[in-house]
Amino acid sequence: MIAEISVFPIGKEINLASYIAKIVKIIDESGLDYKINAMGTVVEGDSNRVFDLIKSCHNKMLDLSERVYTIVKIEEKKDRKAKVLEHAVHAVEKELGKSLKK
Amino acid sequence: MIAEISVFPIGKEINLASYIAKIVKIIDESGLDYKINAMGTVVEGDSNRVFDLIKSCHNKMLDLSERVYTIVKIEEKKDRKAKVLEHAVHAVEKELGKSLKK
Amino acid sequence: MIAEISVFPIGKEINLASYIAKIVKIIDESGLDYKINAMGTVVEGDSNRVFDLIKSCHNKMLDLSERVYTIVKIEEKKDRKAKVLEHAVHAVEKELGKSLKK
Amino acid sequence: MIAEISVFPIGKEINLASYIAKIVKIIDESGLDYKINAMGTVVEGDSNRVFDLIKSCHNKMLDLSERVYTIVKIEEKKDRKAKVLEHAVHAVEKELGKSLKK
Repeated sequence: MIAEISVFPIGKEINLASYIAKIVKIIDESGLDYKINAMGTVVEGDSNRVFDLIKSCHNKMLDLSERVYTIVKIEEKKDRKAKVLEHAVHAVEKELGKSLKK
Repeated sequence: MIAEISVFPIGKEINLASYIAKIVKIIDESGLDYKINAMGTVVEGDSNRVFDLIKSCHNKMLDLSERVYTIVKIEEKKDRKAKVLEHAVHAVEKELGKSLKK
Repeated sequence: MIAEISVFPIGKEINLASYIAKIVKIIDESGLDYKINAMGTVVEGDSNRVFDLIKSCHNKMLDLSERVYTIVKIEEKKDRKAKVLEHAVHAVEKELGKSLKK
Repeated sequence: MIAEISVFPIGKEINLASYIAKIVKIIDESGLDYKINAMGTVVEGDSNRVFDLIKSCHNKMLDLSERVYTIVKIEEKKDRKAKVLEHAVHAVEKELGKSLKK
């Protein structure tokens, strides 16, 4: 399963990097494979572990802020063995016959 | 906690009502308060129960389809007692001093 | 086309009803059909008008706040004539043979 | 402004790479800066150009498929000059004092 996680505090400063960092730390320490981008972090791993991680990220932000907004996109394919974090972009590059900005 | 859940099968028919219905059935039977709209279902309840329901909805669709896409928006406020499913729209109506289409 | 629009200020108060109200006012005055729910507003209409409305909502919040976060889900079916705002939930109710909370 | 764009056909094959590639091609040729990830493409540029690109991506998929689902997350900060595609992840790395998987 892959999932993109974005978590925000509501009612805090305009600059959120210090809040986001505490969430990314949890993802980085989870042992799950991940890639961070400018609008969220895509994680990959066993379905139960990913769901647990989503909950941990949301709850961590609730420790840091009175109100929290979390957006999650989840994509799962039965019996998938390929590493999607790597494979998905390569599949698109192969279709286009060119390298893309990653 | 409130959360809007949208779950889709990928690689199935264009008309998804029969798939969506099986997900909404789980939500309807969960005992959590909810409101269905044209693009998802907003549920409200204890945080752990809502997270469990999100997982159940996603996994149910994975029983029905080889590939599944799930989108979740979650909003939580510490120590909130108000019923957000009811209150949120009323708060906006009060600000505007008029009734809105619901 | 239908689209669910959610727009937030970042770096403002915890209670956002007064900000949300100004966005919903634009939607209400747009002439497009809509239904507001606890986590966003689903609008329906001609594709170009809906895209313009999304932009207007986002830009209005940028007048009110230094930093803005907007989430949009869009769903469109070619040559669709049915009113999805009404029809989508009814189709699910018909599948389940029961009335749902709306 | 930055925006993450994800566009899907509904009612098509399970493997969507050939569809996604046609959308990414439009983004790649738009002249806007972008980074593709496993669940979407984050683009950065002038607000009007980004909104136009979102519309072009959605409409392109509608040429390829009878039914289309598009998810967009938009984030904008007034008078921002920094390149967010580069800066956002660096700011989080700086907070954590370590390099992250990108």
